[in-house]
Amino acid sequence: MAQTSQLRIPGPTPVPDRVNRAMAAPMINHRGPEFKALLPELEAGLKWAFQTENDMLIFPASGTGGLESTVANLVSPGERVLAVTIGAFGDRFADLAEAFGAQVIRYAPPWGEAADPQDLDDLLSKEPEIATVLITHNETSTGVTNRLQALAEVVKRRQRLLVVDGVSSIGSIDLPVDRWGVDVAITASQKGWMLPPGVTMLSVSKAAWQRQAKARAPRFYFDWERAQKLQAKGMTFTTPAMSILFGLRESLTMMREEGLSTIFQRHLRIAAGFRAAGRALGLRLLAADPETASPTVTALYFPAALSGEKSEAVFKTWRDQGLVVGEGQGKLAGKIFRIGHLGAVHDDDVVATVEVLERGLEANGHPVTRGAALTAARRALESSEPSLVA
Amino acid sequence: MAQTSQLRIPGPTPVPDRVNRAMAAPMINHRGPEFKALLPELEAGLKWAFQTENDMLIFPASGTGGLESTVANLVSPGERVLAVTIGAFGDRFADLAEAFGAQVIRYAPPWGEAADPQDLDDLLSKEPEIATVLITHNETSTGVTNRLQALAEVVKRRQRLLVVDGVSSIGSIDLPVDRWGVDVAITASQKGWMLPPGVTMLSVSKAAWQRQAKARAPRFYFDWERAQKLQAKGMTFTTPAMSILFGLRESLTMMREEGLSTIFQRHLRIAAGFRAAGRALGLRLLAADPETASPTVTALYFPAALSGEKSEAVFKTWRDQGLVVGEGQGKLAGKIFRIGHLGAVHDDDVVATVEVLERGLEANGHPVTRGAALTAARRALESSEPSLVA
Repeated sequence: MAQTSQLRIPGPTPVPDRVNRAMAAPMINHRGPEFKALLPELEAGLKWAFQTENDMLIFPASGTGGLESTVANLVSPGERVLAVTIGAFGDRFADLAEAFGAQVIRYAPPWGEAADPQDLDDLLSKEPEIATVLITHNETSTGVTNRLQALAEVVKRRQRLLVVDGVSSIGSIDLPVDRWGVDVAITASQKGWMLPPGVTMLSVSKAAWQRQAKARAPRFYFDWERAQKLQAKGMTFTTPAMSILFGLRESLTMMREEGLSTIFQRHLRIAAGFRAAGRALGLRLLAADPETASPTVTALYFPAALSGEKSEAVFKTWRDQGLVVGEGQGKLAGKIFRIGHLGAVHDDDVVATVEVLERGLEANGHPVTRGAALTAARRALESSEPSLVA
Repeated sequence: MAQTSQLRIPGPTPVPDRVNRAMAAPMINHRGPEFKALLPELEAGLKWAFQTENDMLIFPASGTGGLESTVANLVSPGERVLAVTIGAFGDRFADLAEAFGAQVIRYAPPWGEAADPQDLDDLLSKEPEIATVLITHNETSTGVTNRLQALAEVVKRRQRLLVVDGVSSIGSIDLPVDRWGVDVAITASQKGWMLPPGVTMLSVSKAAWQRQAKARAPRFYFDWERAQKLQAKGMTFTTPAMSILFGLRESLTMMREEGLSTIFQRHLRIAAGFRAAGRALGLRLLAADPETASPTVTALYFPAALSGEKSEAVFKTWRDQGLVVGEGQGKLAGKIFRIGHLGAVHDDDVVATVEVLERGLEANGHPVTRGAALTAARRALESSEPSLVA
């Protein structure tokens, strides 16, 4: 198998050497003084990145575990919940709430589109009993970013609890948790945090804590109260994913060195570069509206002639050249490919990826004007216009 | 803070350099061919170490997550469950089942003792409705190993489902899952597997699968059916803890190089060394019966004069010399200390640890005959008698 030199999937993302070195530090006692010193530092760093003063909780689990912790702590069986789903991960969140006994109302615009704040408002006005709204900020399966500020404004005006799946957004896309009134925001280590998978992190508002005290779904491993009680003492309820937390200390340091707004701008710029390259390659974007095209994942349709089973040959050609991109999920399998560009990804990576994308498409019979995609990408990278801000 | 040169807690355990190097490998696509090649290799290695042909499931979570997955998949609300608990982790398993709505009957011998097969048989004969029995193989909080073979024989004869918390035993203490008829056996990466925390692994028998199909507790993240369906395709349901799985491939290789029975003998020998040293230091063992003293954790009472608050000074003296041991949990806090000796621990480590233990006790006023503990430990290490086998 060819060595992967460019891992361009929306997670796991590449882990920088600095982070790898930090993760190789010797294990420590998770009930001892070294960990008691580490944990508050991580909590503070996460609060900075989440732009919040809410409590931060950390669990050894993937992002789906963070979503489950939220459902298990907030939702009671039989309760009506609104799930705003714009793709596979929104559907997963809705399925999860159903598995825990909630009556889930789904607001599901077509894949490739974002949710409409007015539609959400209409829905909530008709559903006064719904106390909790689940929204995906950035939908990894489609490369669409919701207009979260406007959606949050609706949810808050209607006085509902706002839960945001920020797995592939927080730390990469601007999400000021406190300013927008997000009650629970969830992310996972293998995304913008430049870490291996295995840790989920979430912020919990006062209103969410009040709801938690009354919610009646079973919970133990993911119980927030136990978690918070121990974290307040500089420990975790169960054994923490130590190596990844060592890495998190280092990746938070790297993020502080770069600065949040620089990080957000970098992701916007790189996404613009990939979109421009895609257009120059004659490919159609799944996210038709540039205003909601994701800064972290770009989904492109295969040309008709390479769609379906033929797409496998294209993936293979790319893989043989060291480039791994994401496949389409669910109903989009074989129809699209997804370029993940979050975390430790820089302008040079765009150039390297576009080069291989172009060669692979050409090798499989798709006509390209050699170099046009690279030129388009470079031009987009150089003109980082403020209008690109979602 | 002094550098920890000897981490002698019952997990996280030291991670060998070979494993650390393996974990620093570049991330891969968890839906791609490299992972499809890795996963079956890990499953095969785990089946070898679990001595089973049952299905193996792997989740990104701590050991408690593995226990929760078992309760969520096997137990229905209102159902009567027997929890055999001989310490803090047995209590945790019972609490967990209660959190998921089970009516838990506790068989709880005093801390420091093992469960009695005859008592278990009497209990089960009086409780024909109990379909599931939870048993801790090795109780990390007390350093006691249950006579699992005899207990399993009772549970199987009474035709109940046998669930074993093998978090701090599997891979370190002989637990032939198939031979003893264990339906579900659960472990975690940071124990005998020489890995950082963050992954739980468990085996599921046919009978457990049949129960799973009928059980009605809510489950999603830890749902076995989803997990198995994806693992059969060389994937995992949610993003796997990739770096730890890279490490697991290497630690399984190391374990195969050493051989299972050699590993089990090493743990028995080292435990005998620590027990002999403890006695020579004039300390009382919590596990009074040598036949059920744990091969992976040795719990020793502080001398009366150093018990309670004074124990903190002793822990500090040891820590300043680079030795970290475990504290007492729950009602044993301040009364005992626990030496973890599982995973990457070798004869030389016993000598190094005993040296610091002795000096620390002496520095805090406990009279010792210098060198006696070392001599006793060395003698025990050299005479690895078969009678030491639990």
